[in-house]
Amino acid sequence: MDIAQLNSLSYEDFVDVLGNVVERCPLVAAAVWSGRPFASVSELEGRIHQFLDSLPESGKDGVLRCHPDLAGRELRSGTLTAESQAEQRQAGMAALAADELSRLARLNAQYKRRFGFPFVVCARLHDAAAVMRLLAARLGAERAAERERALGEVKRICGLRLRAVVLPESGDEP
Amino acid sequence: MDIAQLNSLSYEDFVDVLGNVVERCPLVAAAVWSGRPFASVSELEGRIHQFLDSLPESGKDGVLRCHPDLAGRELRSGTLTAESQAEQRQAGMAALAADELSRLARLNAQYKRRFGFPFVVCARLHDAAAVMRLLAARLGAERAAERERALGEVKRICGLRLRAVVLPESGDEP
Repeated sequence: MDIAQLNSLSYEDFVDVLGNVVERCPLVAAAVWSGRPFASVSELEGRIHQFLDSLPESGKDGVLRCHPDLAGRELRSGTLTAESQAEQRQAGMAALAADELSRLARLNAQYKRRFGFPFVVCARLHDAAAVMRLLAARLGAERAAERERALGEVKRICGLRLRAVVLPESGDEP
Repeated sequence: MDIAQLNSLSYEDFVDVLGNVVERCPLVAAAVWSGRPFASVSELEGRIHQFLDSLPESGKDGVLRCHPDLAGRELRSGTLTAESQAEQRQAGMAALAADELSRLARLNAQYKRRFGFPFVVCARLHDAAAVMRLLAARLGAERAAERERALGEVKRICGLRLRAVVLPESGDEP
């Protein structure tokens, strides 16, 4: 689909196609539909960032809490969203050894107790070892900074999901 | 479940239980979890109202766009959320005669063209004839006022869905 086709969609079809670019938050796609027509994928992406940034702190926490655990029970039971399933598999989360799996579960539980949201990372851009290192390193972070860092990961995930659906225009930024 | 049990839930379980009190917007329950413990269902409900009111206009439109059409194709195909399915059935939306169905579809299409979101009404509180009258009457409304009125219906729906899950305390407002 190119941007012109996207701009011609009803809000229902727009949300059908882009409703999960922010995990389990169709509200975000439904909100930015108001801003159409979009000149490019990058412009649409910018509107999504603006919307996320406009949320109160609890709303940003809410967005993060709509994300699944990395290598959690939903990956094993196959109940992740299609996008998360593909991303976690590609990052090797489905192929962890038992000791890695239990280390990751322990670190993530610690992280969630500290911050009140799960560790969110753009899995496609990291392998399992890197994810584990990042997660361990973040446990000592300050809450407000960690929220913004995690929201940055949400935006990175969103950028990749968007570009899996909408073809970039010539002249569009990557 | 009573309010004490609700207050003891992890954000995952909280979102599992209350993720659809605002239709297809688990972000809302995920956000208000930050405000626990809640003294009562009414206090929790107030937090949800605050959160909805804090959204930018596009976000309120987004919430409305996450709602299905009344008596639309999702009701016929059985792909509504469980909550919407029960509410629309109870309001008689599944038992409309062909001419009523096509009149409702026509009115709703007009409404969506005008406002950019579907007609949202607390179906449990109205029968089909009343829904049709309301919808016809609203077609001439002003956009900003209609958005707030529709958000009021979202809150009414939310209140009933909340109380279907969480038992009111003695002394709690109805």
